[in-house]
Amino acid sequence: MPDIDLYAAMSTLRSVRRLRPDPIPDDVLERVLTAATWAPSGGNREPWRIVLVRNAELKSELGSLYKERWDQFAAMYRQGIAHLQEEEKAAQERIIDSGNYLAENFAATPAIAIFCFDSRQMAITDAKLERVSVVGGGSVYPAVQNLLLACRKEGLGCCLTTLLCECEEEVKQLLGIPGNWGTAAAIPMGYPLLGGHGSIKRSPVKKLSYSDKWKQPLFGDSE
Amino acid sequence: MPDIDLYAAMSTLRSVRRLRPDPIPDDVLERVLTAATWAPSGGNREPWRIVLVRNAELKSELGSLYKERWDQFAAMYRQGIAHLQEEEKAAQERIIDSGNYLAENFAATPAIAIFCFDSRQMAITDAKLERVSVVGGGSVYPAVQNLLLACRKEGLGCCLTTLLCECEEEVKQLLGIPGNWGTAAAIPMGYPLLGGHGSIKRSPVKKLSYSDKWKQPLFGDSE
Repeated sequence: MPDIDLYAAMSTLRSVRRLRPDPIPDDVLERVLTAATWAPSGGNREPWRIVLVRNAELKSELGSLYKERWDQFAAMYRQGIAHLQEEEKAAQERIIDSGNYLAENFAATPAIAIFCFDSRQMAITDAKLERVSVVGGGSVYPAVQNLLLACRKEGLGCCLTTLLCECEEEVKQLLGIPGNWGTAAAIPMGYPLLGGHGSIKRSPVKKLSYSDKWKQPLFGDSE
Repeated sequence: MPDIDLYAAMSTLRSVRRLRPDPIPDDVLERVLTAATWAPSGGNREPWRIVLVRNAELKSELGSLYKERWDQFAAMYRQGIAHLQEEEKAAQERIIDSGNYLAENFAATPAIAIFCFDSRQMAITDAKLERVSVVGGGSVYPAVQNLLLACRKEGLGCCLTTLLCECEEEVKQLLGIPGNWGTAAAIPMGYPLLGGHGSIKRSPVKKLSYSDKWKQPLFGDSE
């Protein structure tokens, strides 16, 4: 696999939802899964596991579960973007279209990585706050991001999805995941049907980062 | 900044807790913060912000808050490793030592990135489950991991900490973070005092990944 510079990989990592059914060679999958292991975790406890699903029957079951959730989600999402201006709405519609494609072809994806986690192995420092907890994710999603970036390097399309968490019990039963483990993400992976990775659209750094205090501009210059 | 291959960066990203107080040039910080913006987020909503703290007084306040939490945490952590075998215990003791260093020198770190998030902009698909929620982290920690990897490329030491979440209200007041936003991580960054990044110790991929079903070996071979 040829080298790719870190920034080049990061800045061209797209959510690729249209994937070819062609199988992914074992050595490619092994490198992608190995990249996940390099991520940091609290106390280096590695409180996560991947179940890599390639079995046709299991993928078909996951695909049915995913499609149910997606159809509900897309209907709600459509309402949420109804008020947007034309250009922005069109961009969101394209995301829904590719989401529809993914939902309809979920079972045909060659490999789906289900990320699991064990909260008993985590120090969840925001567990007692009144807001929703996120800190457990700090020992899982760095590994997820490493896996996504590795897909970018290997020429695999991929996309971070969390809809299957809504029916976690069914996913756990299907894959034999033990009671104390939860699921954090499902990543369909495969070679891109169309262009695959490439340019991405993000807000400028000065909109997303402040200096010292909330809303205070970075590096003293005004936005 | 010279190119570094993605896998080379990932596989040598360590938690570097002994940092020099020397300032980090603005152009380096800007590249590191920009790398965070490239991460994916649910619906591309970018529901996170960074407050980059370099002001001495603010760092001093954060340092006091951090040290209180660390001292408590380290005492508990020590109990947790008492039963380990010598070699493993020694490795954990080294982590505690470097954690002590960080806690004592937190305020002297040249820059601390406080990651904030707004859960109202997130579709948290595991919010209604009976287990602790993590999915909100799926739209924050990919950006955190990008920032850590960018530090690796730029020769900056860094380390993902979440202890300050325990006293989030105080941190929010200090930095003027609005009521609806939470904090997900604090990343001290600076040039390494000692060796910095390098080899890491992780479990083999075959221990952390399974094929189709829980505990089923990857690629059919036994572990």
